[in-house]
Amino acid sequence: MSPPAQNIYDNDAFFAAYGKLRRSVEGLGGAPEWPALSAMLPTMEGLNVVDLGCGFGWFCRFAREAGAAQVLGLDISEKMLARAREASDASIAYRRTDLEELELPAAAFDLVYSSLALHYIVNLGDVFTTVHRALVPGGRFVFSVEHPLYTAPSRPGWHPDDSGRKRWLVDRYLEEGARATNWLAEGVIKQHRTVATYLNLLLGLGFRLRRVEEWGPSDAQIEAHPEWALERDRPPFLLVSAER
Amino acid sequence: MSPPAQNIYDNDAFFAAYGKLRRSVEGLGGAPEWPALSAMLPTMEGLNVVDLGCGFGWFCRFAREAGAAQVLGLDISEKMLARAREASDASIAYRRTDLEELELPAAAFDLVYSSLALHYIVNLGDVFTTVHRALVPGGRFVFSVEHPLYTAPSRPGWHPDDSGRKRWLVDRYLEEGARATNWLAEGVIKQHRTVATYLNLLLGLGFRLRRVEEWGPSDAQIEAHPEWALERDRPPFLLVSAER
Repeated sequence: MSPPAQNIYDNDAFFAAYGKLRRSVEGLGGAPEWPALSAMLPTMEGLNVVDLGCGFGWFCRFAREAGAAQVLGLDISEKMLARAREASDASIAYRRTDLEELELPAAAFDLVYSSLALHYIVNLGDVFTTVHRALVPGGRFVFSVEHPLYTAPSRPGWHPDDSGRKRWLVDRYLEEGARATNWLAEGVIKQHRTVATYLNLLLGLGFRLRRVEEWGPSDAQIEAHPEWALERDRPPFLLVSAER
Repeated sequence: MSPPAQNIYDNDAFFAAYGKLRRSVEGLGGAPEWPALSAMLPTMEGLNVVDLGCGFGWFCRFAREAGAAQVLGLDISEKMLARAREASDASIAYRRTDLEELELPAAAFDLVYSSLALHYIVNLGDVFTTVHRALVPGGRFVFSVEHPLYTAPSRPGWHPDDSGRKRWLVDRYLEEGARATNWLAEGVIKQHRTVATYLNLLLGLGFRLRRVEEWGPSDAQIEAHPEWALERDRPPFLLVSAER
């Protein structure tokens, strides 16, 4: 039996805080990793696309505006789906789905996309298996997760040395499993996995890896947001592109 | 022009210290990552094999004993090659080679192997390009390097917290380039690269990735060597298997 899925997004306090993040207010342009992630995407024209963890539907609308033929957005949060539907027209289908129990029709999609959702998933092997089956041959799976360096530590944080230089404190990198953090709400549970595990799960299913990015801010982004410079010491996001 | 290659192995003090390491005295069985690395190797029978940074020739002799047709060991250190030749018979060819200037015949090898040598290389893109050309279609490239988490920090080390638990201090992960360390000798220069860079260099050349390991000790190894447990907090080695 699967554990009950975590749906922190329907918690009122969490939802309110999440709705104030730049990426929630401004959409894709408010996500600093979007330029790198979008560079991994195929041309959208005519594609059948599904977004795992679609949130407010920003990517679904982007895909549709970029010419995708059919777009399906899946999310566990009713509140987020309600907002997504409000902001979209009927050409995008949104469906409440617990990704832990993901079911998709076989060979039905040209692109499976997921942004910062899969590090919450316990049954990741099952999700990847379903994604592989759901893609047409040559179809793409493009996703981002929190970087394993970010999810590994038992107590995530920076340690300043005598000179004030900060270092990221890493432990338990090879010890995979649940980590409790206090991001926007108390006791949010993430699933830590190594970079190798993400990649080997894909390779073991027959995916062909196309590109891997350990994202950090560009020089231009640091000029605009000097406080982001620290993210180069420890990348916050892992981006992966694979082909069935 | 290439920078002059670093040949720390012909430094007397370094060579003496290196010769006392378990992996130098006991060979492959003295290298804790060998079980994981060897599991990535193809069946050796009849293969043409080259080892980049062959050291004392332990892997070359293993390959030959496992049935490899031809084995070539390359190393920059005359001292190591002299020892390798002493311990081998004439069926293994050893050649002094600066990997920074690596040249190999096209489509001549079934397996290119390298253990803990490539993190010293400045011109890694050139080396990978040469390796790709030197492999037959379907040929394998299997290598280990020091893990980027290990090579990244400006001052590598562990920070004990109040409870005595140690954390690895990471900075400069995304800042690739030279790092000076004092491993067995003063001022040994390693080239830090991210996991993504190693993989994308391979993918960009058309290699198909087969497996990635972020190595840490097994339960049995920790039972035999309790002091290795810390290596699970921060993996020391990255192992990669790719196919042309």
